[in-house]
Amino acid sequence: MAYYIGVDIGGMSIKAGIVDESGRILVKDSIVPRVEEGQSAITEDMYHLCEKVCAKANMKLDDVTGIGFGSPGTVDTAKGVITFAANLGFYRYNLIKEFGRLWYCKLAVGNDANCAALGETRFGSGQNKKNTLFVTLGTGVGTGFIVDGKILTGHKGAGSEGGHICIRMGGERCSCGEKGCWEAYASATALIRQTQQAIEKNPESMLKTIALRDGEVTGKTAFEAAKLGDPVAEKVVDTYARYVATGIVLLTNVFRPEIVMIGGGVSNAGSALIDRVTRIVNRHCFGSRKVNDVPEIVQASLGNDAGIIGAASLVMD
Amino acid sequence: MAYYIGVDIGGMSIKAGIVDESGRILVKDSIVPRVEEGQSAITEDMYHLCEKVCAKANMKLDDVTGIGFGSPGTVDTAKGVITFAANLGFYRYNLIKEFGRLWYCKLAVGNDANCAALGETRFGSGQNKKNTLFVTLGTGVGTGFIVDGKILTGHKGAGSEGGHICIRMGGERCSCGEKGCWEAYASATALIRQTQQAIEKNPESMLKTIALRDGEVTGKTAFEAAKLGDPVAEKVVDTYARYVATGIVLLTNVFRPEIVMIGGGVSNAGSALIDRVTRIVNRHCFGSRKVNDVPEIVQASLGNDAGIIGAASLVMD
Repeated sequence: MAYYIGVDIGGMSIKAGIVDESGRILVKDSIVPRVEEGQSAITEDMYHLCEKVCAKANMKLDDVTGIGFGSPGTVDTAKGVITFAANLGFYRYNLIKEFGRLWYCKLAVGNDANCAALGETRFGSGQNKKNTLFVTLGTGVGTGFIVDGKILTGHKGAGSEGGHICIRMGGERCSCGEKGCWEAYASATALIRQTQQAIEKNPESMLKTIALRDGEVTGKTAFEAAKLGDPVAEKVVDTYARYVATGIVLLTNVFRPEIVMIGGGVSNAGSALIDRVTRIVNRHCFGSRKVNDVPEIVQASLGNDAGIIGAASLVMD
Repeated sequence: MAYYIGVDIGGMSIKAGIVDESGRILVKDSIVPRVEEGQSAITEDMYHLCEKVCAKANMKLDDVTGIGFGSPGTVDTAKGVITFAANLGFYRYNLIKEFGRLWYCKLAVGNDANCAALGETRFGSGQNKKNTLFVTLGTGVGTGFIVDGKILTGHKGAGSEGGHICIRMGGERCSCGEKGCWEAYASATALIRQTQQAIEKNPESMLKTIALRDGEVTGKTAFEAAKLGDPVAEKVVDTYARYVATGIVLLTNVFRPEIVMIGGGVSNAGSALIDRVTRIVNRHCFGSRKVNDVPEIVQASLGNDAGIIGAASLVMD
């Protein structure tokens, strides 16, 4: 059995785990990166975290076949360079070269959503599929495409920014500065905004009761109220599902995956989200009423572990 | 030198040409297919057309290494099946098997826009590039993606329907039945509609003079009037370029090609279109203001031959 380390890099926390060749995590741990001390300090932090998970698993460094890293932002996997990751201060940083000085083994780095897509496809909800789409509905909307079993990265790794597809020209302002991006309609942030607006217009709805109980509006508020039969909440959820589905239909028409795996916080709504999205996708994909297969829509199954498992998958070939 | 035949299948005309391994067409010819007589009759027509171009080039059938076909509609290249092509009446038709009975050699069939993308990438404006996007602005909007030198087809070849990406939810009705598709804004058909609307609102504009002279509004009317300095026409052309660019930005954010090659009738406007689209794409691609490379936008160079050359390219590997 070969063993790998997957490192899931985030601005608030870096997670790492020992992953075996069947995609199982043996042990995992995390650290808070020293972002303010710069790129080299973060790289040293990651080295110590990898040592720590090895120790935790009673393994020597030599027992690890390879280490894969999943980073936010733009990553040039071919060169091992994190081109730009705002939260971490990485800018044109050759992580593989720098990490390789501390621990030389098989190393690779990819975009975190792409890694999660690879992990979900190899070991999660997309197993045995060759063309898959992974969508994460969280603070933003992330996407990862697997084409013929490989990550689609685009030129210099700058592709797969599926959150920033324009679904409504001149529409809502997005965090990226543009208008009408999918992310501005289908992220958890957008769902919270849509829920807040519904509460303002309908202060008598169950949405408000739940928000007051929880002390805030979250991505769960509307789904919970809809489940209890609140018509205002049902409308919020239906509209939100339509936004999610619009982006999925768009990407399906271009890229025609066999399966669309939905992850991120909002995906925890489960069938309340998946069933609604499925109905819309089935109806609106190009050619769906004639002969073209419509992709299956499922909830991603690896949850928060997709990052670690996906990063480890990068070095499994 | 190896020789191939490329067959560009259309409802009104089927074109074929002998193509050498450097992508040059030696001879070409065309026929009007017997669409009303069914799939087998069309296949026989294509066989006779191939014989004809061989004779024209003084070649024997055995001198041809392979024959590639580009078909409209959904094509399952792996199986050699034209899944659905409305104009020609092809429905789940195994062209490769049927044609192979008449002339057995290396055979392949692909979607026509995908073939054109491959031809343009190997032998036209996208030479030496590995990740390219071909967009054709004609009656509809077609797209073809080359990823790492290969056509992106999606599951069962049903992908790459880039004309049917939703750029404005709830927007203009598209021929596919949906609303807000890129094709409904960026096709020649849409440009003609936009020009007609501008004439109705501004009957004194130069647009009307040119349309009266030509006896009709065409995809060239607005570009010609804009060149002559007509402000109404300039606005039509600017708005149209914005629609074209919106789809290109969207697809760039997902696929990040190195180059976008624009073909089809409207592309004959040349720099009047290309320069406008380039300016918008440079400004609005995700990350363009930070570090991400923005694709070059060019006019496709093979013109009407892209179909024949691209189809032949299918069997060149």
